[in-house]
Amino acid sequence: MNGAESLVHTLLACGVDTCFANPGTSEMHFVAALDRIPGMRSVLGLFEGVVTGAADGYARMTGRPAACLLHCGPGLANGLANLHNARRARTPLIAIIGDQATYHRPLDAPLTADTEGWARPVSGFVRTATAAAEVGHCAAAAVQAAQTAPGQIASLILPADTAWDEGGVVAAPLPVPPPSLVDPGAVRHAARVLRRGEPAMLLLGGAALLATPLEDAARIAAASGARLIAQQQNARIARGRGRVAIGRVPYPLDQALAAFAGIRHLILVGATLPVSFFAYPGRPNRLAPPDCEIHVLARPEQDGPAALAALADELGAPAAPARAAAPPPAPVRDALTPESAAETILAHLPEDAVVIDEAGSFGRGIFAQSHRAAPHDWLQLTGGAIGDGLPMATGAAIGAPGRRVVSLQADGSAMYTIQALWTQARERLDVTTIVFANRRYAILLGELANVGANPGPRALGMMSLDDPDLDWVKLAGGMGVEAAAAADGAGLADLLAYAATRRGPFLIALSVP
Amino acid sequence: MNGAESLVHTLLACGVDTCFANPGTSEMHFVAALDRIPGMRSVLGLFEGVVTGAADGYARMTGRPAACLLHCGPGLANGLANLHNARRARTPLIAIIGDQATYHRPLDAPLTADTEGWARPVSGFVRTATAAAEVGHCAAAAVQAAQTAPGQIASLILPADTAWDEGGVVAAPLPVPPPSLVDPGAVRHAARVLRRGEPAMLLLGGAALLATPLEDAARIAAASGARLIAQQQNARIARGRGRVAIGRVPYPLDQALAAFAGIRHLILVGATLPVSFFAYPGRPNRLAPPDCEIHVLARPEQDGPAALAALADELGAPAAPARAAAPPPAPVRDALTPESAAETILAHLPEDAVVIDEAGSFGRGIFAQSHRAAPHDWLQLTGGAIGDGLPMATGAAIGAPGRRVVSLQADGSAMYTIQALWTQARERLDVTTIVFANRRYAILLGELANVGANPGPRALGMMSLDDPDLDWVKLAGGMGVEAAAAADGAGLADLLAYAATRRGPFLIALSVP
Repeated sequence: MNGAESLVHTLLACGVDTCFANPGTSEMHFVAALDRIPGMRSVLGLFEGVVTGAADGYARMTGRPAACLLHCGPGLANGLANLHNARRARTPLIAIIGDQATYHRPLDAPLTADTEGWARPVSGFVRTATAAAEVGHCAAAAVQAAQTAPGQIASLILPADTAWDEGGVVAAPLPVPPPSLVDPGAVRHAARVLRRGEPAMLLLGGAALLATPLEDAARIAAASGARLIAQQQNARIARGRGRVAIGRVPYPLDQALAAFAGIRHLILVGATLPVSFFAYPGRPNRLAPPDCEIHVLARPEQDGPAALAALADELGAPAAPARAAAPPPAPVRDALTPESAAETILAHLPEDAVVIDEAGSFGRGIFAQSHRAAPHDWLQLTGGAIGDGLPMATGAAIGAPGRRVVSLQADGSAMYTIQALWTQARERLDVTTIVFANRRYAILLGELANVGANPGPRALGMMSLDDPDLDWVKLAGGMGVEAAAAADGAGLADLLAYAATRRGPFLIALSVP
Repeated sequence: MNGAESLVHTLLACGVDTCFANPGTSEMHFVAALDRIPGMRSVLGLFEGVVTGAADGYARMTGRPAACLLHCGPGLANGLANLHNARRARTPLIAIIGDQATYHRPLDAPLTADTEGWARPVSGFVRTATAAAEVGHCAAAAVQAAQTAPGQIASLILPADTAWDEGGVVAAPLPVPPPSLVDPGAVRHAARVLRRGEPAMLLLGGAALLATPLEDAARIAAASGARLIAQQQNARIARGRGRVAIGRVPYPLDQALAAFAGIRHLILVGATLPVSFFAYPGRPNRLAPPDCEIHVLARPEQDGPAALAALADELGAPAAPARAAAPPPAPVRDALTPESAAETILAHLPEDAVVIDEAGSFGRGIFAQSHRAAPHDWLQLTGGAIGDGLPMATGAAIGAPGRRVVSLQADGSAMYTIQALWTQARERLDVTTIVFANRRYAILLGELANVGANPGPRALGMMSLDDPDLDWVKLAGGMGVEAAAAADGAGLADLLAYAATRRGPFLIALSVP
């Protein structure tokens, strides 16, 4: 058995059965091993950013890591931006990076690069195999590291000779430590704080945003008067009718500061200290008021859901009170505003959909109304590295077969990893992409105004996408994805209804103001 | 004057007047400064790999560095693969990377990443400004570093507050040291070696491949009997009728070994030790025979052209002998083979064209015949990180206005940075792209055979691009580039003739076997 075969066998033994791949020469033995060993689903991406973003979306839906197969240092580099996002989402992920043979690396052939150096900033685990005999163990250790709470990226660098040499040994799965236990002292402390009756807020992140822990959070809120809020960017939120309608920390600084105004106690549950996304001249960058005390109920690597349940019990909180049913969203067939588009999209959201949110400025308000839609999961861009939406939708569809993925996508961001559409077509994935085509980097025009500048022709030239206009129907069609354009509410509604009746990917090019 | 303004003024003072950009929020002050200060041409790319590859192509044609404007760590990461290629081409290039404000970075906001750590492996110079007052000096030092022979990447990281704070100081250009002098001892040594009459070869890289030094190399060859060869991958080669028709080290290992067989003395002129691109099980990875002596006439940072002239004089070599004119290429209108396509493309090559070579497996043989075409410059993918062709063509067209760029492009590689077409349309660049659409990663199928594997269905699934087929005419049209398809020699010839008559970009989707 060669090293590559031991790797495939070990991954399968550890429960990793999906591999998003963009292979190169140094990975040919791994590819050959996939041919010989059944059980691994291989999904080809035409660019590494597609591969890594898809693995992120897959793990967010399954809770299990996928493998990525990347080609040498530059192939890894192409995937780094979405690995950055995955790291911020605390996604378990195995990055397998082929590399020059151990004895070839010192010769500095053209493709040789600092693979380890590039991997380290996004990885919780980096290991370079040095011999075929250790590849299996390295793989088991990587899977263990990826799944260690709260989830992280494990990068396994595989020099070509460690893949092709004989002597591979299949390793058994290593035990995955459970999330750190809830600290009873932290629970009692939080309960004491809440009983004081001062203005308090729970800031939730990670698994605390799934349906059951949100119910426990609502019990706490009802019993104590504390407010609830989710982090600005979250891997996954349970959402829709019947679920707790938690808000998120807003992106615009003034709104973010307002969300925390007057709070005296901020209790972190799987979340980190809230800070502004960027700094602005002369403005605060910590969002909690200066006199707000920060308390930690559960660190990200602790069991946030269990901590919420324990705190609710400690408070003797009854079951969450019945919530008045919000009016369901209603399609708007005329004007196309951010608000009307949100109503129309949410009214057409299929039951149990998976929503991918890289909606940019036009679609920023959709989430706030999505508690009124059919139950769904909401997955966000988590690290601010745009170009995650289309790949994440691709991986989420593979991780959640039978559920429709609705991908809310800004046009500028879509262009970063547009190649993902091809994989959606190839794998016949049930993804409806809505491209909000405002033909500019609208968020930057806002930021330019924030810094006090009126854009002149050069600045506008660096933020406008309208010369030439991007034709999204042609772009999608070029990659085998059926698509159509809409420029008003009626057109949007009709295309959403059509998309819901068919299988496979569909793209709606929505011209927005 | 704020830091950003001091940066723009300093770049202009240092002769850097072109900026390829994909800006984000942290770069808004730089963008605003571009508005206020005339003289900097800003070229927008819709993905950072386009931006860095274009800067590489620009510098290869002008000999001067362009600036790239990139957004934080992940924006840099997206541009790393083509920075890797630029590093291998020894291209002078200034990477300006916006980043979190100095006081915001410790808060670890979502977009925060290890910007310096990612920049270092591709950069000869990395500096993070810590205050507005030092930005100007940092910029001048970066330009100096980029231009220091043989050329390198200088990364200047610009925290947002160092851009927006007042107190910027414009710095004067710093002196650029000339290339290291020719070593007279190395010239005399090389002459002694050549006079022995043993089988000898000069391996040329860098500036030694421009027209005049190639003439001197030909004088040396004629006087001594030594053979000439260029590195496998080169930034720029002067090529076409009337010029010295130097060959390159072949990519396939057997051919590469054959190229050096029997050579007793290998003299390096701006080149490095020749090694195989990848290692293969049980095969050699150094290309020169074991008993071949290696001699260094000029290191890459030395003046290779001057060294060749000095060596030719030392040998008393007369002017290069008249070369018999090779028959010009002739279009082939029927079958479409690699050979016939090469003839057709080269027959239509406009005078003084710039050829970009990311032609992959189908187009690999075109170079070998290009000495018979009209005079041109030949620019290659230098670091093996595919996705360089379309961006490099974009930058080369901006760096060489008035010359037609002919971009020979493999289909799989084209998908990595397909966004470059939009910039070609926006800037009305005279680029003819020929996509060789064989609908597979053909090079990998060859490599899989090299490792002794017969591809089964899973392996084929990871190397085929035909489900669905990519529609290149739609993809180009989606980005505003006129395009047409051809599937035989006549169609190719007609489209090449048409492309030559028009201005602006044009894409030929060439279906090949």
